[in-house]
Amino acid sequence: MSRIDDLHEHLARLNRIGIALSSERDLRGLLRRILEEARLFTGAEAGTLYTVEGRTLRFVVSQNEVLPGRGGSDDSSVWFEDRRLPLSPDSMAGYVGLTGEVINLEDAYHIPAGRSYRFNAEFDRSVGYRSRSMLLVPMQEPGGRTMGVLQLINARGVDGGVVPFDPRFEELVRSLASQAAVAIRNVRLTEELKRAYHETILRLAVAVEFRDDDTAEHIRRMAEYAVLIAKELGRDAEEVDLLRYAAPMHDVGKVGVPDAILCKPGRLTADEFDQMKRHTLIGAQILGDSEAPVLRVSAQIARSHHEKFDGTGYPDGLSGQQIPLMGRITALADVFDALSSERCYKPAFPMDRCLAIVREQRGRQFDPEVVDAFLRRTGEVGGIRAGRASGLPGLGSVMTV
Amino acid sequence: MSRIDDLHEHLARLNRIGIALSSERDLRGLLRRILEEARLFTGAEAGTLYTVEGRTLRFVVSQNEVLPGRGGSDDSSVWFEDRRLPLSPDSMAGYVGLTGEVINLEDAYHIPAGRSYRFNAEFDRSVGYRSRSMLLVPMQEPGGRTMGVLQLINARGVDGGVVPFDPRFEELVRSLASQAAVAIRNVRLTEELKRAYHETILRLAVAVEFRDDDTAEHIRRMAEYAVLIAKELGRDAEEVDLLRYAAPMHDVGKVGVPDAILCKPGRLTADEFDQMKRHTLIGAQILGDSEAPVLRVSAQIARSHHEKFDGTGYPDGLSGQQIPLMGRITALADVFDALSSERCYKPAFPMDRCLAIVREQRGRQFDPEVVDAFLRRTGEVGGIRAGRASGLPGLGSVMTV
Repeated sequence: MSRIDDLHEHLARLNRIGIALSSERDLRGLLRRILEEARLFTGAEAGTLYTVEGRTLRFVVSQNEVLPGRGGSDDSSVWFEDRRLPLSPDSMAGYVGLTGEVINLEDAYHIPAGRSYRFNAEFDRSVGYRSRSMLLVPMQEPGGRTMGVLQLINARGVDGGVVPFDPRFEELVRSLASQAAVAIRNVRLTEELKRAYHETILRLAVAVEFRDDDTAEHIRRMAEYAVLIAKELGRDAEEVDLLRYAAPMHDVGKVGVPDAILCKPGRLTADEFDQMKRHTLIGAQILGDSEAPVLRVSAQIARSHHEKFDGTGYPDGLSGQQIPLMGRITALADVFDALSSERCYKPAFPMDRCLAIVREQRGRQFDPEVVDAFLRRTGEVGGIRAGRASGLPGLGSVMTV
Repeated sequence: MSRIDDLHEHLARLNRIGIALSSERDLRGLLRRILEEARLFTGAEAGTLYTVEGRTLRFVVSQNEVLPGRGGSDDSSVWFEDRRLPLSPDSMAGYVGLTGEVINLEDAYHIPAGRSYRFNAEFDRSVGYRSRSMLLVPMQEPGGRTMGVLQLINARGVDGGVVPFDPRFEELVRSLASQAAVAIRNVRLTEELKRAYHETILRLAVAVEFRDDDTAEHIRRMAEYAVLIAKELGRDAEEVDLLRYAAPMHDVGKVGVPDAILCKPGRLTADEFDQMKRHTLIGAQILGDSEAPVLRVSAQIARSHHEKFDGTGYPDGLSGQQIPLMGRITALADVFDALSSERCYKPAFPMDRCLAIVREQRGRQFDPEVVDAFLRRTGEVGGIRAGRASGLPGLGSVMTV
């Protein structure tokens, strides 16, 4: 094949990789994919991807085909770490991150005189590896901002031996790295937006409802239990995400129930209980009639989370599959957290008692499949109970007026 | 230049276009850019971009270099429309959308026998244009789903005459269309997420606060006034977006003020007013201590929207530039909407009286620059007052318990 044919084929491949990279929506998956594609593209045995964070380079993913447990395409052998090095011209990656230039070395142990950077052989020594040919390119966005550095190590020639990186690859790999930079930026922006959205929902849902730290924790935990169950039931990632955002709003309708009823010690009268039940309908009205899927699901959950599988719940007296799945899941998550937490009217029940109640209500209050899914994942309940909602301030001090 | 050199150059250009397309974050800008790049790439004089929506193709953007006021790169001459045609094999675009095949015709008026589609010459007749060579490619995501159809018309040869589209372009344009499909999908997902976020904030902010339709409308309008002012002050799009999301939450701290004070008719006692003032601090606490920029800004606004430019406001008695800009903007937007709306304690003031009060408070309650910016845009106030928050249900009926 001629040199031009070759380049043509590489360029066509680069286009396909670009399309694939921009479709990737998970940041970790994307980072791994970028490094894999860059290694396949250049025949590199190993590689590392750094992202620029402030005045540092963060070492985020590394692959090495020959080091056991650390290379190749096998999931477990890809290596995510969280080390940082300063963005300074002493290191090779730092130099590329600062200047936006490419470094292409035949042998990392023989850097030409006059360069500001040195090769850090510490890693090689610690694992018994020998880095030889290296290609480092900046990951630059179209505006020129450097998002990271792609470092490729030991290109393999046709006979399997280490060869220098073909200089013709430099521009191609730079282009791939730019596509990667844009893809990373896009995925990050979406993740930031989702995080802000989730946090806003949690904070406002807490403010709408009981106004204290305990409520914030209840909302966080019950949503995590619900997510756990949905995953165990094999729901897809998008649906699980909707539930994660929607479940915290299940009780916003309580804003329409007088405090005198919400906070009443002892039993409610029949009339008071009727008013209390209306929180499901009020919640559905606050959240309803939207085109946004997350609000549609949240309205559905608000309305149906007090329905019971045997048809004895409220407000609609639905039974079995008539109750939306997300409502059936939330019902169990909500009750389980109430059982296992201290409330003004009861102490926190021990775990075995909570689980006994859940089992006893299998097919009565709760969907048997939802109960079974939850019981298969009880190992994770402890972790959810222990964690605190990150970023949620202590509301109790000011909110209890 | 050899044929291969040529292809090589085209592929390299395609890579650059792909990177540029995936950086575009505005849907309209993206659609226009896709069509422009595809036309430049193939030398097409005109073109149309359709998106698949359900069982229809939506005609979203069209460009034509030779029709006056409808072509080229001049902003005003790009042509956005909202016509639809059925996704059926009778039309050329419908056929491509359905089958995922490419159509490359030397002359649209001489379609080879045996094809299911016909050329619709109605548009040509109505504007006196003659479509001749045509290239239609599907815009397919990597999974194979067709997002739309790219239609290019009248390729220009070196002598300026219309020539057929070079078949070698078919795969390249298909690749460009795939990049476009992914870029459109990404931008749409982000826009949907933002819309859901915004709507959730509006609904929850209403639920947190006064619980009625009037509050929903006040929150919507005041946020729109604030956005108007920020734009007039030349703030960048990102900051304006933050304000759009953050401003509706400015009063969530009222959840911590007893209803007896919030709803008290007549004057508050000094002690009651002190309690009322605390809604700024409570709001800042509910929203504060977050890493999410939208929550940081909303906490800042919650705390500072009752400060006055001359230092006589609360809770911190800040003056001038000490008050965060977003707080100074929100203060005016909030008061202006209160003046121009009916409240339990006052009728809606006529516009001239509202504006007189705003002018009188220039440099006293309000930042003079914010006042000036607002006064330059009063022409848009009527439109904001007339619009209703889309998707917000009538809360009054159930919420007023």
